[in-house]
Amino acid sequence: MKDIKTYTEHGGNVYSDEGLLKGKNIIDFSSNINPLGVPKSFLNNIDEALESVIRYPDIEYKRLKKAIIEYHASETKLEEDNIVVGNGAAEIIDLSLSLFKNILISVPAFVEYEKTARKWGKNIEFSYLKEDMHYDYEDIIKKIDGADAVILGNPNNPNGNLIHKEKFYKILDKCERENKIVIIDEAFIEFTGNKSLSFVEDLKSYKSIFIIRALTKFFALPGIRLGYGISSNKEMIKNIKSIQNPWNVNCFAETAGVYVLKDKAYIEDTLKFMNSERKFFVESLKHIDFIKRVYNTEANYVLCSLSKIEASKLYKLCLDHSVAIRVCHNYRGLKGEFVRFAIKSRKDNLRLLEVLNIISENLRC
Amino acid sequence: MKDIKTYTEHGGNVYSDEGLLKGKNIIDFSSNINPLGVPKSFLNNIDEALESVIRYPDIEYKRLKKAIIEYHASETKLEEDNIVVGNGAAEIIDLSLSLFKNILISVPAFVEYEKTARKWGKNIEFSYLKEDMHYDYEDIIKKIDGADAVILGNPNNPNGNLIHKEKFYKILDKCERENKIVIIDEAFIEFTGNKSLSFVEDLKSYKSIFIIRALTKFFALPGIRLGYGISSNKEMIKNIKSIQNPWNVNCFAETAGVYVLKDKAYIEDTLKFMNSERKFFVESLKHIDFIKRVYNTEANYVLCSLSKIEASKLYKLCLDHSVAIRVCHNYRGLKGEFVRFAIKSRKDNLRLLEVLNIISENLRC
Repeated sequence: MKDIKTYTEHGGNVYSDEGLLKGKNIIDFSSNINPLGVPKSFLNNIDEALESVIRYPDIEYKRLKKAIIEYHASETKLEEDNIVVGNGAAEIIDLSLSLFKNILISVPAFVEYEKTARKWGKNIEFSYLKEDMHYDYEDIIKKIDGADAVILGNPNNPNGNLIHKEKFYKILDKCERENKIVIIDEAFIEFTGNKSLSFVEDLKSYKSIFIIRALTKFFALPGIRLGYGISSNKEMIKNIKSIQNPWNVNCFAETAGVYVLKDKAYIEDTLKFMNSERKFFVESLKHIDFIKRVYNTEANYVLCSLSKIEASKLYKLCLDHSVAIRVCHNYRGLKGEFVRFAIKSRKDNLRLLEVLNIISENLRC
Repeated sequence: MKDIKTYTEHGGNVYSDEGLLKGKNIIDFSSNINPLGVPKSFLNNIDEALESVIRYPDIEYKRLKKAIIEYHASETKLEEDNIVVGNGAAEIIDLSLSLFKNILISVPAFVEYEKTARKWGKNIEFSYLKEDMHYDYEDIIKKIDGADAVILGNPNNPNGNLIHKEKFYKILDKCERENKIVIIDEAFIEFTGNKSLSFVEDLKSYKSIFIIRALTKFFALPGIRLGYGISSNKEMIKNIKSIQNPWNVNCFAETAGVYVLKDKAYIEDTLKFMNSERKFFVESLKHIDFIKRVYNTEANYVLCSLSKIEASKLYKLCLDHSVAIRVCHNYRGLKGEFVRFAIKSRKDNLRLLEVLNIISENLRC
């Protein structure tokens, strides 16, 4: 078991000391990647990236920013200086959090928020999700008094719930008045298929919003490393750029961004698939005996609490069937036994359900 | 002229607001890239990178580190925790400098050293090269008393001179005794073709040395973004990693590193070419009328001081002939008019020399 360390920190870590666990044919439910796979619009234009290897990237990434501007054109009117591009969303999280002294983090959440804030020696306050895994808006508005910035996911990771916009505007209004920044990580928002659930359209009205996006999840490009931040707060964008390394996005990531963001067929196919598959997957999980609760999700992953079995034990049993799952032991604020499953292809999902049922039957014996 | 901003900060910036200056067919002497071009050993293995796009990179980059260990095996015995891989050498410069409060920078030097130190709010002291563009070892040893770390190039950019090892050991000994760090940027060292000129073999004896390497220049991969730092000071490596973003090197950069570092044919071809071409190019430049002095170089670029013409004027005249050169106005410590030329293919070099001769003749008219 020691050769997969998936449950130590992040999902998607399917490497051993000898490299990728190829021989094992692991189906990886720990990493929340679009099951439609790498968009052909990237692969078909790979020659363009290959031709660019010999040059430094455009240090201003004008072409990439143009693609981002067009991608969001129906939501808001962005200009180049509303955008900062990053070597994965990880870099954008890192640099945006670095700007503030006192940070409020809603938890459980993507573990990099806290890790990054600690790395920078920030003062950290936490707002815990309610028992139903929805945001505690009253708690956030109370605690934000002591913070310069708050970071939270829309939808949140690991559970997939969205920010309730109407309830959240009160928080935004307060932050707008008091010059606080609301960092909204929308790395998974496209899986909802509904642009009005994103806060991009609210950038027009709120200088306090800084939105993080990534191509990693929805466009299935985790190996590429491309994320970006957008805000109508040009001062904040400028401040991030001033501490950013030059040429931080490589030519392959740049090419990917330019082409996949306008790949309407891929986007539509994904939404069509995900909408129905999510329903099927969530309903099916509810029938697994040792799954206590399946949490509501608008994303491409499902958080489940367990009874009768420890998460680490389930992880090991699944791995015996060549299935990797995400044990949620390192999410602050998750009390009890939790696992997260990515929503993958129907075939893979059926295999997971089969494995879970086998484990369930064995538990009964 | 406004569409090329090459001489504002870095070389290699051949982009306008509309993207790459394709139509103009610019020969770019401002960017110091191996004229042999992208190694086939990378291009031939591109499928491996393409297959990896769908996965997160190995967060520990074990395979890439193994390739780096093997690459340096004849010089020193490295282990994984002697290595930190970066999104270009830029990231390694950034993170290594971030660790220290008081930094001594030898100048003129790669402008990112000072820019990075300023960004982090460091106390900066400068040691200026002597008039012949060699290091002022006496000055460095004097000024290092007030510093926690010193950074310098081997060879140095923009001039291409090497650190004189025998003279430098006195500095290293002092730093070793007093727990100071010597950051040696060897981004261009491979162009010398002589491993004993590098400080990698000295890592065995000195914990005070931190060496920065890049694949950008020698392996002609500026679009890829891959650099690394090596040191026998595992504590320093650990400290850098602790502030580094996860998955900072993308799968294309990883694949490039794995294959090109063992591409012996490419390495040999480059050295064979560069050895003879450097002599030819340097000698030819000496015959250009308005070039006052051609500085000694062991790298793949040549620094020249000018008389009778301003560097910015020469830049513009060259660009009229579709040739981009590096104006050195933003190198601290360069007094007077300086330009830097990359050593490119014989054909390109002949074209540059032709253009310089045309300009020279016109000046005489």
